Amino acid sequence: MASYSERLTARVSQLNTPALVGLDPRWDQLPADVREAAQSAGGNAAAVMARGFESFCCEIVDIVAPLVPAVKPQIAFFEQLGPQGFTALARVISHARAAGLIVIADAKRGDIGSTATAYADAWLAGEDSTAAPFGADALTVNAYLGDDTLRPFVEKSVSNRAGLYILVRTSNPGAATFQDRISENHKLFETVADVVQLLNSSHWPDDTYGSIGAVVGATWPKELMSLRARMPNTPFLVPGYGSQGGTAADVAGAFDLNGHGALVNSSRAINFAFQKQEYAEQFGPAGWRDSIQAATRQMIEDLQMHIPTTA
Amino acid sequence: MASYSERLTARVSQLNTPALVGLDPRWDQLPADVREAAQSAGGNAAAVMARGFESFCCEIVDIVAPLVPAVKPQIAFFEQLGPQGFTALARVISHARAAGLIVIADAKRGDIGSTATAYADAWLAGEDSTAAPFGADALTVNAYLGDDTLRPFVEKSVSNRAGLYILVRTSNPGAATFQDRISENHKLFETVADVVQLLNSSHWPDDTYGSIGAVVGATWPKELMSLRARMPNTPFLVPGYGSQGGTAADVAGAFDLNGHGALVNSSRAINFAFQKQEYAEQFGPAGWRDSIQAATRQMIEDLQMHIPTTA
Repeated sequence: MASYSERLTARVSQLNTPALVGLDPRWDQLPADVREAAQSAGGNAAAVMARGFESFCCEIVDIVAPLVPAVKPQIAFFEQLGPQGFTALARVISHARAAGLIVIADAKRGDIGSTATAYADAWLAGEDSTAAPFGADALTVNAYLGDDTLRPFVEKSVSNRAGLYILVRTSNPGAATFQDRISENHKLFETVADVVQLLNSSHWPDDTYGSIGAVVGATWPKELMSLRARMPNTPFLVPGYGSQGGTAADVAGAFDLNGHGALVNSSRAINFAFQKQEYAEQFGPAGWRDSIQAATRQMIEDLQMHIPTTA
Repeated sequence: MASYSERLTARVSQLNTPALVGLDPRWDQLPADVREAAQSAGGNAAAVMARGFESFCCEIVDIVAPLVPAVKPQIAFFEQLGPQGFTALARVISHARAAGLIVIADAKRGDIGSTATAYADAWLAGEDSTAAPFGADALTVNAYLGDDTLRPFVEKSVSNRAGLYILVRTSNPGAATFQDRISENHKLFETVADVVQLLNSSHWPDDTYGSIGAVVGATWPKELMSLRARMPNTPFLVPGYGSQGGTAADVAGAFDLNGHGALVNSSRAINFAFQKQEYAEQFGPAGWRDSIQAATRQMIEDLQMHIPTTA
């Protein structure tokens, strides 16, 4: 019986990288052979696209499972296809868990009381992947509704040894609109950060890291460093590296001296690496699997040059 | 071609009530005959529960369609069942639209850029119920990530004549934790309110109400009144009436002098009215349909006594 954070730390140490691969399927950008295979099996548009999403994401899983500790399916892209998208998503998550990957469902859910409990029940399988219909290890959560609305998610994290990542400072250009509002010398995102840190220190007082994480964008290196100091035993999920402009140097401040404390996500730059001239020339139009593998390896190397190593 | 707000106002005027019935199915609380029918058709636990949710919610729809303008399925309860829950949900929404009801998907989604677009694509069918896999008229949205993250939802609202309800001041006891933080004399929820009001006045300058609404809890009557003044052409969705303690007098301030400007939601008190002694005695254990109808009528009458009428 291992907590989410213990399981995550073990995988990061084993593979010696904090690289997290996002699964962001977009029909128009799928490799031509994936789209053709999905179409040839027939069915309505949603069935065809869901089949393509499932096969594409399962192939990404197979490619990255020996290389990275975790994957992060973006739920919106599956949700966009309706019920058939969720069937595909459940299979992708199951496939990733079977491959030994930690699965973080990026759903940004949040609601009050028993409704929050229902969301936790849907996603937070935790250590036993069969303990929820969508068998994720961890879930991203939006705390705008209030600290009381986090309680059902935290309870499930404790009982199922699952993880949470609360949105603290997001990677988008307009993140400051609400998150940076200053009250009594603290920005809103700092107040959210303090709530998250307190949850960790109260529920996992003896662990290096608790199981309640924070989402902090790679696009804000200054905030990333100050939040690392402010939340010493909170694990980070750092989006915004790669396509959104964050660099390995930008994310270095999210880590402790052992190279732990954060996962750095890249989605589009890996999923659709074959569209980049560099990889297209090297591997040809049918070489999308090689492109995904090469882009993943390149991300791992790039991160290793800038963050403390676990070696 | 009518905007969301025009369609909503027409339904509210026609039925002369702003009552909104939430659809919050919970397996343990379903009427015994609904559970037995769902079980007798076989399948795994999720299939059985999804079948029960679908039949129960479709029956509620049939009962309330002649009485109220709109229903609000709570997505978390369907999501909790996995892909089969979403299949049931899509059918419930479709059934409600066919019955002439306005459908507000209470999903509290929110994300950045193209991910927000994917959520909008999933839910915001708007005027043409077939224009999205989950064919809702409107969607609840969480704006913590920033004002830029609302843009894809607003664009879809304009193009599909759909509605949004942005979380402003929620009904839970801990709503104040983050939403009431004061910066430059404004609470956070007031700043969110100003963003929403500006969206309405810029996109629907000539309409009494725009199509971008605000969620404001019935449990905070003072804030409800001040927000009505602050957001003169923003429609409200008011949760927290009934089971959460909000009264008809508490919500009166959300309305204009014509009885427009807000929908007041009740979920559990209507869905599970048959559990109340008052109705159980009157209609007997098999009379859950009569209890739902009576509770809906009682809510309508209660609201009519306290808010300005449209007559």
